[in-house]
Amino acid sequence: MKAIIAHAAKDLRIEEVVEEEPGPGEVKLALATGGICGSDLHYYNHGGFGAVRLKQPMILGHEVSAYVTALGEGVSGLAVGQLVAVSPSRPCRSCRYCQEGLYNQCLNMRFYGSAMPFPHIQGAFRQSLVADKLQCVPADGLTPGEAAMAEPLAVTLHATRRAGPMLGKRVLVTGCGPIGVLSILSARRAGASEIVATDLSAFTLSLAKQVGADRVINMAEEPEALAAYGADKGTFDVLYECSGAASALAGGIAALRPRGIIVQLGLGGDMTLPMMAITSKELELRGSFRFHEEFAVGVGLMQKGLIDVKPLITHTLPLDEAVNAFEIASDRSKAMKAQIVF
Amino acid sequence: MKAIIAHAAKDLRIEEVVEEEPGPGEVKLALATGGICGSDLHYYNHGGFGAVRLKQPMILGHEVSAYVTALGEGVSGLAVGQLVAVSPSRPCRSCRYCQEGLYNQCLNMRFYGSAMPFPHIQGAFRQSLVADKLQCVPADGLTPGEAAMAEPLAVTLHATRRAGPMLGKRVLVTGCGPIGVLSILSARRAGASEIVATDLSAFTLSLAKQVGADRVINMAEEPEALAAYGADKGTFDVLYECSGAASALAGGIAALRPRGIIVQLGLGGDMTLPMMAITSKELELRGSFRFHEEFAVGVGLMQKGLIDVKPLITHTLPLDEAVNAFEIASDRSKAMKAQIVF
Amino acid sequence: MKAIIAHAAKDLRIEEVVEEEPGPGEVKLALATGGICGSDLHYYNHGGFGAVRLKQPMILGHEVSAYVTALGEGVSGLAVGQLVAVSPSRPCRSCRYCQEGLYNQCLNMRFYGSAMPFPHIQGAFRQSLVADKLQCVPADGLTPGEAAMAEPLAVTLHATRRAGPMLGKRVLVTGCGPIGVLSILSARRAGASEIVATDLSAFTLSLAKQVGADRVINMAEEPEALAAYGADKGTFDVLYECSGAASALAGGIAALRPRGIIVQLGLGGDMTLPMMAITSKELELRGSFRFHEEFAVGVGLMQKGLIDVKPLITHTLPLDEAVNAFEIASDRSKAMKAQIVF
Amino acid sequence: MKAIIAHAAKDLRIEEVVEEEPGPGEVKLALATGGICGSDLHYYNHGGFGAVRLKQPMILGHEVSAYVTALGEGVSGLAVGQLVAVSPSRPCRSCRYCQEGLYNQCLNMRFYGSAMPFPHIQGAFRQSLVADKLQCVPADGLTPGEAAMAEPLAVTLHATRRAGPMLGKRVLVTGCGPIGVLSILSARRAGASEIVATDLSAFTLSLAKQVGADRVINMAEEPEALAAYGADKGTFDVLYECSGAASALAGGIAALRPRGIIVQLGLGGDMTLPMMAITSKELELRGSFRFHEEFAVGVGLMQKGLIDVKPLITHTLPLDEAVNAFEIASDRSKAMKAQIVF
Repeated sequence: MKAIIAHAAKDLRIEEVVEEEPGPGEVKLALATGGICGSDLHYYNHGGFGAVRLKQPMILGHEVSAYVTALGEGVSGLAVGQLVAVSPSRPCRSCRYCQEGLYNQCLNMRFYGSAMPFPHIQGAFRQSLVADKLQCVPADGLTPGEAAMAEPLAVTLHATRRAGPMLGKRVLVTGCGPIGVLSILSARRAGASEIVATDLSAFTLSLAKQVGADRVINMAEEPEALAAYGADKGTFDVLYECSGAASALAGGIAALRPRGIIVQLGLGGDMTLPMMAITSKELELRGSFRFHEEFAVGVGLMQKGLIDVKPLITHTLPLDEAVNAFEIASDRSKAMKAQIVF
Repeated sequence: MKAIIAHAAKDLRIEEVVEEEPGPGEVKLALATGGICGSDLHYYNHGGFGAVRLKQPMILGHEVSAYVTALGEGVSGLAVGQLVAVSPSRPCRSCRYCQEGLYNQCLNMRFYGSAMPFPHIQGAFRQSLVADKLQCVPADGLTPGEAAMAEPLAVTLHATRRAGPMLGKRVLVTGCGPIGVLSILSARRAGASEIVATDLSAFTLSLAKQVGADRVINMAEEPEALAAYGADKGTFDVLYECSGAASALAGGIAALRPRGIIVQLGLGGDMTLPMMAITSKELELRGSFRFHEEFAVGVGLMQKGLIDVKPLITHTLPLDEAVNAFEIASDRSKAMKAQIVF
Repeated sequence: MKAIIAHAAKDLRIEEVVEEEPGPGEVKLALATGGICGSDLHYYNHGGFGAVRLKQPMILGHEVSAYVTALGEGVSGLAVGQLVAVSPSRPCRSCRYCQEGLYNQCLNMRFYGSAMPFPHIQGAFRQSLVADKLQCVPADGLTPGEAAMAEPLAVTLHATRRAGPMLGKRVLVTGCGPIGVLSILSARRAGASEIVATDLSAFTLSLAKQVGADRVINMAEEPEALAAYGADKGTFDVLYECSGAASALAGGIAALRPRGIIVQLGLGGDMTLPMMAITSKELELRGSFRFHEEFAVGVGLMQKGLIDVKPLITHTLPLDEAVNAFEIASDRSKAMKAQIVF
Repeated sequence: MKAIIAHAAKDLRIEEVVEEEPGPGEVKLALATGGICGSDLHYYNHGGFGAVRLKQPMILGHEVSAYVTALGEGVSGLAVGQLVAVSPSRPCRSCRYCQEGLYNQCLNMRFYGSAMPFPHIQGAFRQSLVADKLQCVPADGLTPGEAAMAEPLAVTLHATRRAGPMLGKRVLVTGCGPIGVLSILSARRAGASEIVATDLSAFTLSLAKQVGADRVINMAEEPEALAAYGADKGTFDVLYECSGAASALAGGIAALRPRGIIVQLGLGGDMTLPMMAITSKELELRGSFRFHEEFAVGVGLMQKGLIDVKPLITHTLPLDEAVNAFEIASDRSKAMKAQIVF
């Protein structure tokens, strides 16, 4: 079978790898659709990010849906032929954090397509995959593309939980890539009453508007528009920081009201923060990392039509155009989410 | 001008009362629509409830919308002719609880149409009303009927905030009168992923289903259906108790999972609770009483189309049919919310 | 070896039972001291409580300290001869609640000395005991009597966590048995600024005062003293209900301020509550059940001198006077905590 | 009467100013003791800090106790001759944040001795002071020096509330100036089970140890000692950052466990943070600013002997040695809190 393997920056190959067979409690899957994530793009374009670097060839991909092709011993609740969303999160379920129920903090996490430990954790962009039953969430009624959105949606649902009660809150989203736009959907689903989104790209802002932002601000065109929200110590209750840019964070902090909450989603390097404002307005900066039970929650919300991710899927390409798909996904002036059909 | 005045049980009269004029900071209003609430019905049918009894004639009504007819000195932000939702809540803004921001706990509250203090606090079912500017929330874009729903909606939005984070939660609503059905809308708006509702009336359950309940259970027809949710210590994360019936509360408690939350909305007398289950499952029973800032939040959510209360308004009658409106509203097999046009 | 076995109400026998040997991960213990708990007294005096009844002979006891006498394979971190506090809580660590970290809600809990499942879970009042390593918390520096207090202390530490932030709060404790008095110690340790305690027994109230209650009220002598705290909707932020009496709960509710929190510790039958006060003051009634990590926390707090439980240990008797110890413990006019030395 | 007035950096003068008389609701006070705070030292040594600069002469001081000398019209609950702790916090009680109960976020705050608005808010280091009754908390039983510690104690009690539940938590305090040491006392009072403190000064660390830190680390002598706490993603539940040094914050972040909480107390300029660790460990950085009701709470805790601040008062000088007192207070190798007797 074929897999999409990153060897180094700009060296992405479609190569043959050996198929696996499912053991007890496992499921064999034929991959349906895979979405390209920002971290995949970092490996593709730069060979990694920060201290996380490719040191050996690695199969990319962690946003995938698949069809069940075989059930290992003792697996029930799934049927051959069924579409499933496949969670890339594989906690050990026995370390101290797993025992506390903090599975996303697992000390021995094996998250698909991560170069962080060595040997790297291989990813899910391969035609055939063997997964633990616990990773597979039935996605009946969804398209394979929607099911493959379960992973980034889970990230923003988790972030929304980290932000606390949202009903009637005023929300600012800085950065309208896929995580930013899914944050808009998640915040709205959780009851936000007003959502303002900022970015530098007219394309992503138009999508932000389409999925429900009440107002979008192009910081390249209206650099001062956000300042008005900073009057009387600020307006917004919650800031989803999805840009990774210190300037966006600083601008958002000025627009947050006292006791406002910043959810930090982007994984970046060191960042310089205006501590005087954080202290004197008593803001809260909360890190948010991956997800756990929100994966299944998101599938359920999509199935009931309570969250619609379809507008985000702007490009769908076949496996043999994978390199092209990565190129398209890298251009944020045209692409939101690019997916590959396996 | 005319007002709807309760003199005693089953003695409701439309009588002439003197118009008032607005002072500084006040607004003169021509009433548009008034909704009949459960407490109005208690005064009408029984002369009160519990220790709260009519001791003098009292104008009923606290769910009202109105058109601005005159502005008192110093009032800005409102225009003559504008439709407003009128909050019946008038805290003193100076007692110890108001100073903490707990306005719904005001020691000197003057809530429209309440027989609790004596002399009673007169209500808002009168053709002309003078209100404080702070009570008036612009309702542009809403119908007068929708605007008059702002008050009961605020009750359930407040209850939803009392319930804590709701995203992805499983919710049970016991009792599908207007407060129960608005609880369904509020819980869904706040992100509940599954909502089950119970009642004894096929009519109210059909409305519960229509506004978004995933499943409705007629306890008269399927008395055992809820028990299945009690397996393995229970299923639901949150229970909105809107029936005031001890049996409904007990049944709901059995279906709640450990650490589940019960929001108690109904104002009733003493109730016998299964304390063993509450203690051993570590449930939380939280009282919820009226609202404060949720009044304006609800108007905003309706204006943006994020909550649609129109299906609840089943009957609209003119002022001179007010007694008939109270009779209709008393029959829960046919009416959800009956409103009077002034 | 000898064990204390309840056969029926008032039929308590000291009998020979077979010693066990430790397997992998287990520890063999020579019991040091065992404290008599309220549930032990229910078995002794009444053969059970509510629906929980003795159906076969059961070794009593779950408040115990012991000396390590042998280590099973693979056990480290403990030494032969070391004093340990032994947690009676044995969750399965694999059910859905254990996987969430809610170990006290385990579906397969085997808590020492419980008649709830059948066959009953045998208790720890036996000269030799084999326990899992995870149950044993080193108690160096404590007396065996103090170490045997770790269990009831953990109950009140858990309840204090359930009550939420305590710093500067005003606290009412109704019922001054061991759990009530330990609640006073725990609330004070967590920063309560004012603690008032009520009971009907002069003896227990004198102990409550001794361990730090700012004021004690004998409800038999000053039945109206609590009412003054109910002015202006009430005074106390938190109520620990440790009496199991509906009248105490109702009196406490009247003295709680709006948004006050009731921690319900006693395991009793159905109870009639003043729901109007709960709803209109927006109180929160939170069940609290046993403990998990608080067991080790309590041992640590005692070791550092941050909580002193010694004043509660009013009686210490040898094993052959066990029946007498149960009689003494049953008389709340003279005994707080009676312990048996093994 | 005399007052201590900063004219510019290193230009501190004791000058005559005019006495005021109390109006309705006000109290006339004879100052007893005043403590020198870090912000006073900034004005004295540097003429300000960050963007906050002296632009006109300003009376310093905001940590004061006083004796009541006269009562204005309508003041009850205070007696002439009584010692009071005087809160320097004077919110307007009418802006939007005051109306929410967030008095420390008042838009019109007049906090003693602040150069931030212009004209500056004059301070309390003057022999006679007229204050609002609400600022005065009876301090019977305390020494004037203790009562003057109510203000910095309130800062750390507020920070402790911002940190959330503390019972059984492991706490790190970086920076052992007066705020750091008071944080140790506050965290312990709120139930922290283990407290580690770091600083570069042997003197301040010895005081940290004396008031209850379980371990102190001199980062100048043991620069690597903190690293051991970073194993397995970290140890501490809560970090009080009281140093204002980015390196201390970074070191503390490495030692925090997942979901750990950082309370940021110091008011400094921009700071560079390790965002990768904050995001991936899902830490929370919470600003904490001044206090409100904690002022009276702290006085009460000191009166009951539940917090003892006396060890912190290392120097007490008469008014005419005020300049010397500022010099002594500036030397952290010898002084913790220097106070002036008026």
